[in-house]
Amino acid sequence: MDLKQYLKERCQLVDAALDRYLPREDELPVSLHKAMRYSVFAGGKRVRPILMLAASETVGGSVNQALPAACAMEMIHTYSLVHDDLPAMDDDDFRRGNPTNHKVFGEAVAILAGDALLTQAFVLLSNAENLSLVSPEQLLAVVQEISRCAGSHGMVGGQVVDMESEGSREIDLATVQYIHTHKTGALIKASVKAGAILGGADEVSLAALTSYGEAVGLAFQIADDILDIEGTTEQLGKDAGSDQARGKATYPAIMGLSESKRRANELVGMALQFLARFDEKAEPLREIARYIVARQS
Amino acid sequence: MDLKQYLKERCQLVDAALDRYLPREDELPVSLHKAMRYSVFAGGKRVRPILMLAASETVGGSVNQALPAACAMEMIHTYSLVHDDLPAMDDDDFRRGNPTNHKVFGEAVAILAGDALLTQAFVLLSNAENLSLVSPEQLLAVVQEISRCAGSHGMVGGQVVDMESEGSREIDLATVQYIHTHKTGALIKASVKAGAILGGADEVSLAALTSYGEAVGLAFQIADDILDIEGTTEQLGKDAGSDQARGKATYPAIMGLSESKRRANELVGMALQFLARFDEKAEPLREIARYIVARQS
Repeated sequence: MDLKQYLKERCQLVDAALDRYLPREDELPVSLHKAMRYSVFAGGKRVRPILMLAASETVGGSVNQALPAACAMEMIHTYSLVHDDLPAMDDDDFRRGNPTNHKVFGEAVAILAGDALLTQAFVLLSNAENLSLVSPEQLLAVVQEISRCAGSHGMVGGQVVDMESEGSREIDLATVQYIHTHKTGALIKASVKAGAILGGADEVSLAALTSYGEAVGLAFQIADDILDIEGTTEQLGKDAGSDQARGKATYPAIMGLSESKRRANELVGMALQFLARFDEKAEPLREIARYIVARQS
Repeated sequence: MDLKQYLKERCQLVDAALDRYLPREDELPVSLHKAMRYSVFAGGKRVRPILMLAASETVGGSVNQALPAACAMEMIHTYSLVHDDLPAMDDDDFRRGNPTNHKVFGEAVAILAGDALLTQAFVLLSNAENLSLVSPEQLLAVVQEISRCAGSHGMVGGQVVDMESEGSREIDLATVQYIHTHKTGALIKASVKAGAILGGADEVSLAALTSYGEAVGLAFQIADDILDIEGTTEQLGKDAGSDQARGKATYPAIMGLSESKRRANELVGMALQFLARFDEKAEPLREIARYIVARQS
């Protein structure tokens, strides 16, 4: 399959749906809705929604069954970026080459735009229109999975530990692993799992895809750490080496660059093994896993 | 009925449930969970959860059917206070006589504690254990109602307009009404409506209780505006007259104190009329409506 073409098409599909599912810019309060849309349409690669759609299709579900939840996930991912960039947190002026939300709309609106994006995700997930394609039990299970992975035992928890260990000299592998599995890994796992639930996966398929999601989530973050060192500023949309400069807890900082690459490759190998039971409908998930390490070079 | 005793007992019931439904302080990350609990247990009167429980009972439901959602609502209310108090927003050092969340835990953790409380509300609402008492359709309808009222077309939207009109000289009644019905009114209405849904209300009862919730929500905010002028600092837990000092958009600022009182009384009268079709099980809702204006003096 042509992964590049596939990702491009899926990205357009998700973008079009996000445009439908977000309040319009002319709806009151205008500044809030502009700020929400600004960050959602700031060039995200839609990794999480694409994984969710692909997981749904892997177990025989349709794209439409998972599309609202996929967009909800992207809203949650976007809110986390808006809040992470705030002066009180990472204090970033640019993301993907554009001024961050608070630089454009001010800190107060940026905080509230993040809050509203997180809330809008649940508006979307619980929309009664979804019930034409999936059962209320499936939707509730997805709300549960996504909220757990986004909350204090998931993404937000990871962000707190990341922040608290920044610049600390005694970070160990367990801490880095906690940060990675929570801050980014949790939402990636939840994306795959939610797709599987919405696609109607049986218990064994759900477990296999959950394991795939965990492996891919961690591999993705390790690859990101590596890119921060080896990538160009242009590739990254931010300064290369910024994690290092900040004393961020990363895999390469703990175990070195080559051991990090070995670990990322190993995780991708595991992810592919978890997909062994699925037929060619899992090809996109396989290609995405391979792509994660390929983009290192 | 003895309203004071009733409110006290319900407050204790809600507090005990919140304690069960929130992550413990010794769970990782400790600072995050401490910050979440700090603001949830900072002396809130639990108005919204108590209204939800009372609405459920009014239509023949039980307390237990509505208790998880009632606590979820209190978490959302608490997150909104934590974020409102931030330096980039109202920049308040004290709330109910205690230092605000960011004064104790720092701005970054306060932002994330708010995010985590909002997220935890949806963890709680979608918990499969709730399905022993209510249907998945009821739960989904409640997630929809609460998320809509908390989001960009509800509470967050009201907060944005409130902030943007602060200190402006041209605030009109329509703007004040928008702020009040959205910033505080939306969650109060959603509390009553969610209670009605969980208690199994038929369509007519649901409509009546929704109208009650709207009237009470607006009356509550007007009464709050009046209290800000007439209350003592001790009563308020913050400086009396602080709305005025800040140029906040309030009812008394637009239509004067006595007209505001007349309007609050009128709304309470309307709220009572909306309850006319219910028997003595609606007595707590009636007493709470009367109490809202009584506490003015």
